[in-house]
Parts: sequence; structure tokens; C-alpha cells
Amino acid sequence: MSDFIGELLPPDRLMLTPGPSSIHPRIYRAMMSTMVGHLDPWFLNMMMNEVQVLLRQVFRTENRTTFPISSSGSGGIEASMLNPLEEGDEALICVNGAFSQRMAEIAERTPARITRVTAPYGRAVDPEDLRRAGKGKKIKVVGATHGESSTSVASPLDEYRKVADELGALLVVDCVSTLAGMPIDVDRQRIDICFSGSQKALSAPPGLSPITVSPAGEEAIRNRKTKVQSWYFDLTTTMNYWGKERTYHHTPAIPLLYAFREALRMVAEEGLEARWERHRSNQRAALAGLEAMGLKPFVENPAERMITVTAVQVPAGVDGKAVQQQLLDEFNIEIAGGFGPLKGKIWRVGLMGNTSQQRNVLLLLPTLEKVLTDQGFQVPAGAGVAAAIRSYSESRLAAAVK
Amino acid sequence: MSDFIGELLPPDRLMLTPGPSSIHPRIYRAMMSTMVGHLDPWFLNMMMNEVQVLLRQVFRTENRTTFPISSSGSGGIEASMLNPLEEGDEALICVNGAFSQRMAEIAERTPARITRVTAPYGRAVDPEDLRRAGKGKKIKVVGATHGESSTSVASPLDEYRKVADELGALLVVDCVSTLAGMPIDVDRQRIDICFSGSQKALSAPPGLSPITVSPAGEEAIRNRKTKVQSWYFDLTTTMNYWGKERTYHHTPAIPLLYAFREALRMVAEEGLEARWERHRSNQRAALAGLEAMGLKPFVENPAERMITVTAVQVPAGVDGKAVQQQLLDEFNIEIAGGFGPLKGKIWRVGLMGNTSQQRNVLLLLPTLEKVLTDQGFQVPAGAGVAAAIRSYSESRLAAAVK
Repeated sequence: MSDFIGELLPPDRLMLTPGPSSIHPRIYRAMMSTMVGHLDPWFLNMMMNEVQVLLRQVFRTENRTTFPISSSGSGGIEASMLNPLEEGDEALICVNGAFSQRMAEIAERTPARITRVTAPYGRAVDPEDLRRAGKGKKIKVVGATHGESSTSVASPLDEYRKVADELGALLVVDCVSTLAGMPIDVDRQRIDICFSGSQKALSAPPGLSPITVSPAGEEAIRNRKTKVQSWYFDLTTTMNYWGKERTYHHTPAIPLLYAFREALRMVAEEGLEARWERHRSNQRAALAGLEAMGLKPFVENPAERMITVTAVQVPAGVDGKAVQQQLLDEFNIEIAGGFGPLKGKIWRVGLMGNTSQQRNVLLLLPTLEKVLTDQGFQVPAGAGVAAAIRSYSESRLAAAVK
Repeated sequence: MSDFIGELLPPDRLMLTPGPSSIHPRIYRAMMSTMVGHLDPWFLNMMMNEVQVLLRQVFRTENRTTFPISSSGSGGIEASMLNPLEEGDEALICVNGAFSQRMAEIAERTPARITRVTAPYGRAVDPEDLRRAGKGKKIKVVGATHGESSTSVASPLDEYRKVADELGALLVVDCVSTLAGMPIDVDRQRIDICFSGSQKALSAPPGLSPITVSPAGEEAIRNRKTKVQSWYFDLTTTMNYWGKERTYHHTPAIPLLYAFREALRMVAEEGLEARWERHRSNQRAALAGLEAMGLKPFVENPAERMITVTAVQVPAGVDGKAVQQQLLDEFNIEIAGGFGPLKGKIWRVGLMGNTSQQRNVLLLLPTLEKVLTDQGFQVPAGAGVAAAIRSYSESRLAAAVK
């Protein structure tokens, strides 16, 4: 059978999805660098230190415990829930989509008592609902997802922080789909545990989940009465590997760390503010174009829209999946559909990291127009591209005025 | 600070350690292939299918559930312990080194009752001790480590299988350091859960833990009364992602899967028997050389020696760490030391996958001789290399006679 398994020949896709995002050649080049062992002195000192210094800048934190976990972003959810929670604890989890639901599901596997505070898909959880759910309870953790990429809703973290303060709780935030693409400032916003994924707005390959833990978060974890129920995601020991001691824990994915370091360097070179503004400007143009083509954003409230991912409704009578397939077949462009209750109802366009580029916006709009037209949906000819160009011109003018 | 973090420039090491092993250029090339999304039809069908077909050949199994977990090998331990074990269950874990101890530690984080059956470091657990420990008990899982790479001891799996049969238990085997380097035959040896690491005798980058589960193992997992205490390592759901359904679970490390597929292809091209024989012949030559230099193997019983990793005792009066450091500084060659109770007492030489080559053996012996001489240890000049060459000649002759 293996006689028939030949050379690896993947198609050459442009991934305009909520991750993974397409990877810059510089990052591939770094990933190809000679691999060393994970106990090599160069790796333990130089390499790991540099990754941590750069990562703290992206998180905007001085937290000592800041490092990439050897897992996908879902491993970050697992680490952030399993470490602070044990028997006798209570947590509130904001649930408004598939990934925040995953956070709740993971928390519910601990012996802690979990309350889900929900919002309809397409909305952020109301801080008042969170306040009400916690009233009179001793809450240890408030968990929320910054960018719920299954719906493209962004949540009001500062409001959640206020509630967490009132409750004396730790704030745990999933910023898998937002870090380095939307403003996040771990120290200023006083997020106690914040984690992300390598393959989203950082545009490194998937496989790492950067995490940072505040001193208060660390204290809560160190004061546990019982062992963390996962050895692999036990931060009390991985903190020692990435801490001063460098105590061996497990073998990390060294080439992924090389790639990740290069991705972090590219963020540092661009500057976080400039990077956020780039994401903003491309999302604004893409959304203007999509709306001009007659597509409606799934998230009604502009204040609750993510910058890195934009969901639009599949118009009545159009087969969403067929549109995606044609984009893939004719143009090698991947956009995402909805899943779970939103299957077939939305498309999700990701413009994150290396894919947040003007040229990608000005490629997506006409190719999508072509496909929609083929699929029988009436698009005002050229309106999408025209609106995007207008948006870019306005951004330029606004920047010039400043 | 990031202004001072420049281009990634790792040293060019030859890793003769118990993993990671040095990577063949073909594997790097595959890893560089254009990344696609994890929900891309090409990836979901072609790519994932091919990885599974090739992986079944390496494990020598027809198990449906055979796939790489997105974690280091330690994640494989976690998955193999957390999935079958729940409240009310009982397990016996063979402990004779750091990695088998890790298996016990992980099992002890489940609510199941765990009994450690121990052997001194440098020995395999006696099957009779295992039998005695299980007598009269209802044992669900017998866990063992095939190659305990912290000591270079290989364990008698077939004997353990007999005991597990007598007890009506599942046999769970860690073959992180042995798969594709030492004979293992999952179906014939009736191993119920068997897992490995990508970075050892498979010589792919670290970051994946291939696992296979027998129908009996699957049944035990599906019949659980409670949820698996880890969402990330829950095989009941990841089996669906890698099963026919391809139900989205998490984003795997796509470039690592590309590399892994190429590593599996290389195993298929070489043939498992030929690969095992290559490992045997290089280990034999290396050990002959090391012994001729006056170094004593740490594992006394030849039947209990691993083929992929060989531990030798640090001679009295020699600073083991200094030898390693000089090998690194002068020759860019990494060998490993002992850890835990064996710190400073042994060296561990790994000849696995791409590093199991005659030229590496004939490079290690003279460089080590030079370093040992510098460090004041009397080595019979040239004896190591001479013994290795003799061993290779004998292997050639023996092969010719066949």
C-alpha cells in the first residue's frame, strides 16, 4: 500500500480562514534551521530566553510565567482551566459560541462547580448577566473568550474584569484568535491567565499555545490542595521548565519554536500598534466590500465585531458549502463556513497575521463575486472591490491628516 | 530588547542522544510544503488517510484507531492512562526508570487505584513480580515501558502480555524510544494501547505522539461511565477526528504532520526488518567500541538492553558532565547524561532513526576517545574504533553467509 503513497504534494492554498493563516517565507526559513536537542545549553539558555522576552512584548506583560505550551490552542484552554480549578472551587464561564463552550466543557471536567453565563450566538455575554450569576457566590475564576471565532464576536474584557474584581475572582481569557491582531494588554487589563494559538494572528504554524500567568494566578495555582488532573498541562511543573530552573519536563516541538520565535520577531519589527492598525484597516475594507456585495455581517453590533475574523450571513437560496468549494477549486482560496448550529448559515473570513494584506482583500472580493454570480446570487458588478478601495483611500487620508 | 534579538543561528549539532535524533533533509523538505488548512478537503482525506495507512504499517497493526496525537510522547502516556482508567478501576504499572515512573505518576492522577511494580534502575520488572502484584485483584490495565530510555533497559513485553492475559487486563505499552528501531508488533504481541514519539527512531521532529488502540482497548474506553478527565487527550473524541467522521477536534500541527508522513514513507521504503537490523548492527558496533575503550554498559543483562539507546557507566574519577560539554564544544556532538538518581553516573548514547549510521559510530568513538584522554581517563589507543570496525565486518560476513 505504501508503494502507492508518493511524494507530498499539497495544493497551494491561500487561507483566508480563522486560522491557520498562511505563513511568511521567513518563518519557514527559521523553521528549517538545524535542530538541536531540547537539553542543549544553547537551547535552554539563548533560545528559550529569547522566545520568552519576545512573547512578553506581544502579551504586553511582565509576567515571569510566559511561555508557549506544546499543544494547539485548545491545550491552552485546558491548561487555563485545569490549573486554577479543583474540588470546592466555583467558576463562571461566558459562553457565546463553540470555543467558549469548549472552555466550559473543559472546566466541567474538573470537580469545581461551573456556571455557564450565556449569550445568543452573534452576541457577547452581557457583563450584567455575569454580575448577576456571581452574586453572593465565592467565585474563583471568571472565564471568557476574547474573540469567539466561531461567530466573530469580540467580548468586552474590561467590563468582565470589573465584575471579576467585584467577585474577587481571577480573570481567564482565551485570546487564541486575537493576540497580535486586536488590542490586548495583559498587564493593563489585569488578565490573570491569558493564552493564544501560534497559527492565528501570529502566523506561525499551529502546534503551540502561548500562555501567560499573573502573580495572582501563579499564587492560586501554587496554593492548590490537590494535584492538577493533567500531568501534561500541569503549569506547576512546566513553569519550572520555562522558569529559571529549566527542569526537564517534556520534549517541545523544536522546529515549531524556531518558527514561533521568527513570528514573534516579525511582530516586534512591525510594532504592535501598527499591526493592530493594519488588521483594522484590512477588516474595514473587506467588510465594506462584502456589504457592498449585498452580504450582511452576522454580528449586528459593530462594537462586538472581531477585527481578525468577519462572519457574514449566507444569503437565502445560496448553498454556502458550494461557494466555499468553488472558491477552493477555481482559485485555491479557502474561507470557512459555520459549524454546529451555524452550519451552512455563515461564512467566516479570516484576515490575520500574514494574511491581513490589502492584496488578499482585493483578491477575495472579485473572486467571491465571480463565484456568487455563478451560484445565482445577484451581486452589483464591481461594487465590492470599489467599496474596499474607497475604504483604503479613506484610511490613507485619515492617516495623512493625523 | 527585541532590537537585540537577531536572526536565529543555532549551532550545527549531531545529536547522538535518546532523542530528538537528527533529521534527514528529505523530512525538512516535506515540512516546508505549502501549508493547507486542517479542514481542507485535501487534508481531511488524502493527507490524514495516508498518514494512518503508513502508521499502521510501522505499528504492525490493523487497528482502526491509529493516529498521531498533537503532543510530545508524554502526551501519549497521558492519553493511554487517562482514557482507560476511571473511578473504581485498578492498574499495575511497571516502574524501572524515569519514564515508567512518569507513567505511574500520570496514572496516579486518575481516581483509579494504582500499584507500582518496581525493579532497580538498570533492570526490567520481573514478570513474576507483576503476576504476584495482580494476584486475586481485578486489574484493568497493565502498563509498561518497552524501552526505558533513562537507563537503556528493554522490557519483556511478551511475558507481560501473558500476565495481563491471566489477569484479564489491557496491556498498555510506551514504545516512545523503540518504535521503528526495535522489533515491535502490536497485533501479534496483542498490545492494547501502544504509543510512541515522532522524534526518536522515526526521526521526525518532536511534537507528535503516534498511538494505536486495539478493539478491546476501544471498547474499554467507549464503556467508561465518566468523562475522560482531559478534553485534549480524550480519545473518544479524537478517534472521531481521525476516524471516518473527521469531526473537527482541534487544529493539528500541519507542518509536523507533513514531516511525519515523510518519515513514515522512509520507514516503508527501507522496510521494518531492514531498519531493525540497521539499528542492531550499529548498536552492536558502538557497544563493542565503548567496551573496548574500557567503558562498562549500565545494563548488565544483554537480553535487557535497548537497541536504540545504550547507557554506559561514567568511570570513577571522570566528570561526566565535563565530557559531554567538551564533546559539544569541540565537536558539536551531543550525548546525554543520566538524570534523577543516575545524574553524573551514566552517559546515554542514542543511535536512532537517521542517526543510526555507521559513520556516526565511527565518528563518536574517536572523538570520545580524544575527550576522555583529555579528561585524564586512560583509553587503549584506537581500540574503540578497531572493535567497531571488527563488529561491522562480522555483521557483513554473517549477512553474506545467510
